[in-house]
Amino acid sequence: MKVKGVNLGNWLVLEKWMSPALFDGTTAEDEYWLPRQLSKAVYEARINVHRSEYITERDFVTIKSWGMNAVRIPVPYFIFGDREPFIGCIRELDQAFNWAEKYGLKILIDLHTAPEGQNGSDNGGICGVCKWAQNPDEVEFELTVLERLAERYKTREGLWGIEILNEPALESIWEMFGMQQRYPPVDLKMAKGSKGISHKFIRQFYKDAYERIRKHMPEDKYVVFHDGFELKAWKDFMQEDKYKNVVLDTHQYLMMAEMAGCKQTIEGYLKYIKEHFLKDIEEMQQYFPVICGEWCLFNSLACGFDTKGGQTVLNGLEGASVETLTSEQKMEIYKTIGRAQLEAWNKGSGYFYWSYKLLTDTVNTSGWIGWDSWDLGRCVDFGWFPLNYENESIIIH
Amino acid sequence: MKVKGVNLGNWLVLEKWMSPALFDGTTAEDEYWLPRQLSKAVYEARINVHRSEYITERDFVTIKSWGMNAVRIPVPYFIFGDREPFIGCIRELDQAFNWAEKYGLKILIDLHTAPEGQNGSDNGGICGVCKWAQNPDEVEFELTVLERLAERYKTREGLWGIEILNEPALESIWEMFGMQQRYPPVDLKMAKGSKGISHKFIRQFYKDAYERIRKHMPEDKYVVFHDGFELKAWKDFMQEDKYKNVVLDTHQYLMMAEMAGCKQTIEGYLKYIKEHFLKDIEEMQQYFPVICGEWCLFNSLACGFDTKGGQTVLNGLEGASVETLTSEQKMEIYKTIGRAQLEAWNKGSGYFYWSYKLLTDTVNTSGWIGWDSWDLGRCVDFGWFPLNYENESIIIH
Repeated sequence: MKVKGVNLGNWLVLEKWMSPALFDGTTAEDEYWLPRQLSKAVYEARINVHRSEYITERDFVTIKSWGMNAVRIPVPYFIFGDREPFIGCIRELDQAFNWAEKYGLKILIDLHTAPEGQNGSDNGGICGVCKWAQNPDEVEFELTVLERLAERYKTREGLWGIEILNEPALESIWEMFGMQQRYPPVDLKMAKGSKGISHKFIRQFYKDAYERIRKHMPEDKYVVFHDGFELKAWKDFMQEDKYKNVVLDTHQYLMMAEMAGCKQTIEGYLKYIKEHFLKDIEEMQQYFPVICGEWCLFNSLACGFDTKGGQTVLNGLEGASVETLTSEQKMEIYKTIGRAQLEAWNKGSGYFYWSYKLLTDTVNTSGWIGWDSWDLGRCVDFGWFPLNYENESIIIH
Repeated sequence: MKVKGVNLGNWLVLEKWMSPALFDGTTAEDEYWLPRQLSKAVYEARINVHRSEYITERDFVTIKSWGMNAVRIPVPYFIFGDREPFIGCIRELDQAFNWAEKYGLKILIDLHTAPEGQNGSDNGGICGVCKWAQNPDEVEFELTVLERLAERYKTREGLWGIEILNEPALESIWEMFGMQQRYPPVDLKMAKGSKGISHKFIRQFYKDAYERIRKHMPEDKYVVFHDGFELKAWKDFMQEDKYKNVVLDTHQYLMMAEMAGCKQTIEGYLKYIKEHFLKDIEEMQQYFPVICGEWCLFNSLACGFDTKGGQTVLNGLEGASVETLTSEQKMEIYKTIGRAQLEAWNKGSGYFYWSYKLLTDTVNTSGWIGWDSWDLGRCVDFGWFPLNYENESIIIH
């Protein structure tokens, strides 16, 4: 199967920029601090209404109508409701399985956060803190979450697979991205001792997780692991016969390509996609089925200014106050680089767009011009996303 | 202009069946009782998250992508925030104007509720109570709301018009529908004295409202009045030259046709649409531009059982527990009656579908099979709604 899917980001794992109103009246920048700044009753009310409205049955109908076959659902470590003050969300995932099966979609469950943080970013649940891997109890807790997920959904028709852990920050990335500068911690004491995760640790963790998941989940369902932003570091990993249906997940964003020197022109993006995204995936596809589990059309060129690697008003970067590109220019940029990226993912085993939906208001709030391209719904409706790209090759032939 | 639009129902005026989670943990059946069963903080949290998530910029992009040109936005009498314990929502309407103007849509502001009720239904804000017309202070209050809306948006490019009052229940309808049986009042004392509204009253109110709105709003914007479910009763109304750009709004639902004896077969629906919807609109179009401001594809045939005029589990009617029709059968029913209805509205000046979106879960909650056809998003995505029907005539040629 070639995966052609989309992430249901910000549904069960929050990112402030994707639904700012949930954070109204607080200074919280992440999901960890939100319940600590609201009364229990108000926190519950906000979370429950959000979960009941953000993603619903109708969204599964929409995704199916786009010809897609799968969704990747980020879930938090507190999904089972055993980590106060957070509220569990296993009921929502149960419902999603019923919708997926009714409308013919598969689900990749993606464990997206870990207690004390696995990457120090907002989407890891707590800004500036990356200490999970240093705490054996929490490492074990994370394994029990995976096991419980596997046990619960193991034979469901709607289950495509389980992803062990989203974007663990390896040492190289922890330094290169300057995670604590980009996502400053609120509590310095809590953040102290944060550091990148070693290859040795994550390899052992992935192997342990594989065993714990496979105890329950049959071998026809996939176990997915994230490359930690080092796509080519896994050639000697899990190559033994006993590992069945293991998928390598890589996340490739043009804003990160820009940080690595990609020129902010259509030609620059095409060159980078061809020489890095496509080439590396093609290479690694010899070892694992490779999916691009997160990517999007977003890029600085279409924003009309250099976003310095996708920084926003939330990071103190101002953003454009008026559109500087015409509709036609945006259409050309997005369709061209969209086709090229799809062609790259097609060298592997498919993709999940990030993300299905965001509530970010580019009209009534300033600084967000260009950020609508993170929203697949808007990309499809604007005609930017080449839904039927198939073999319209841009860069290879 | 032919209006081709959709209602943003349940955004600023709530209907429990369209977003049941907002009412969780209460016995409230309508917007009036909801804040009276929740703490102020929890009520605010639920309403604010709902308003920020239910309709957003991306929905305007979607509606535009369907080739539509307008939205009808139901607003409550407390929109300006001067009726405790309700929370105003003028900020949301302001934002909607910015979205509409950015994406090229027009807005019909529809004053959908009145204090003490103008029809006794849940969507009028309070079940079983219809006393507004008997209270001169509240009649005057309603006029001030219209005036403030006209004053605020009068010259906005995005303004199509203002509808004076949604679905006032005339005496005939009050009796025929048995509104208090269908929507039982909670407080019998409060409901006492409820009755249908006289023609005399509503005619005078409409004329007064016209003057108050026109004081501010230029004559190129429309003033819309609802027919009170008596489409042909308005031939001698506002025919004087001084009334400019007055539009007659009629709401035509097949579930109501069923109550009036329409057979629950495709042929039955087509016959009824031709002999009533189309014929009556064609006749009244001689007097006013006529829009069908609410309608949908919903019908008992596609549900697989007689809904007794669109009653649900909320009215104590059980509903189907499994699908009895195939996808192909549903497609045929919906596409056929959809085209016929569009042809009828096309004899007038266009339509607004009811509604853009509902959160009703037909998979995880029982009794709602068939109700997804009220959701234009799902109808488009399922391929039921004949978006490009144009001149594919079913019933005339």
